[in-house]
Amino acid sequence: MADTVLFEFLHSEMVAELWAHEPDPGPGGQKMSLSVLEGMGFRVGQALGERLPRETLAFREELDVLKFLCKDLWVAVFQKQMDSLRTNHQGTYVLQDNSFPLLVRMASGLQYVEEAPKFLAFTCGLLRGTLSTLGIKSLVTTSVAALPASKFQVVIQRP
Amino acid sequence: MADTVLFEFLHSEMVAELWAHEPDPGPGGQKMSLSVLEGMGFRVGQALGERLPRETLAFREELDVLKFLCKDLWVAVFQKQMDSLRTNHQGTYVLQDNSFPLLVRMASGLQYVEEAPKFLAFTCGLLRGTLSTLGIKSLVTTSVAALPASKFQVVIQRP
Repeated sequence: MADTVLFEFLHSEMVAELWAHEPDPGPGGQKMSLSVLEGMGFRVGQALGERLPRETLAFREELDVLKFLCKDLWVAVFQKQMDSLRTNHQGTYVLQDNSFPLLVRMASGLQYVEEAPKFLAFTCGLLRGTLSTLGIKSLVTTSVAALPASKFQVVIQRP
Repeated sequence: MADTVLFEFLHSEMVAELWAHEPDPGPGGQKMSLSVLEGMGFRVGQALGERLPRETLAFREELDVLKFLCKDLWVAVFQKQMDSLRTNHQGTYVLQDNSFPLLVRMASGLQYVEEAPKFLAFTCGLLRGTLSTLGIKSLVTTSVAALPASKFQVVIQRP
């Protein structure tokens, strides 16, 4: 239904708008737009984190929280689950989505890989914001090897 | 569920972001941000218009198209129907939502009425964009008398 794609359409418009009015099209300006998007994602993630039905889940371990992101958060936002979750058991987690919805509409091809960060920044923030609401400070980065597969690396920041 | 509020959260962030970086906080700058939001709404409306299940409906009359906006479009975006639709039968339609979701979270009170246009511009564009996909050129304006009730006035542009 339309509400499934509403978020995707709005997200594309947001990306287009931020890049259209970019005062500095060089790496500095690009970085600023990415951090604006990441910040928006962070605040949306914080707000969503308060809404998701986490009462049903007892978060005994950090891994439970990450599983919650891969399942509940991903379903709420993208109507699908994350494809895999790996960890080194030392606070680093790699979440992989083999067909990340915000990249699916991009034509695949190596030449588009450098455009991918624009379409991932908001979601990095979303993960960081949701984790923050759940009491976990983190750094979230991303990598794309073959579109539309995406990896999100979450590194937990210990106090 | 969270996906219902995702659009609302993202919309708030978009409004906040556009006003945070407003180069000119006077009426001119305000007007530019409103038109940026309206333009984003227009393009999202165009895209949504192509997706909504309009095959089920035979649009024999203009009024059918307006009813489609009040029902199908509103449910897809806001999970509720518009509260009333009136027309002068000369191409002007007034669509009223007694509890417009994007204004519900604002505290009610006369002092907030002047903030309301920011939260209505995207939706004016959304209506105009959906109508455009359905082959109707229009002008959409809005008025708020008592928050969170909102009126959208659609004036059809005849060729």
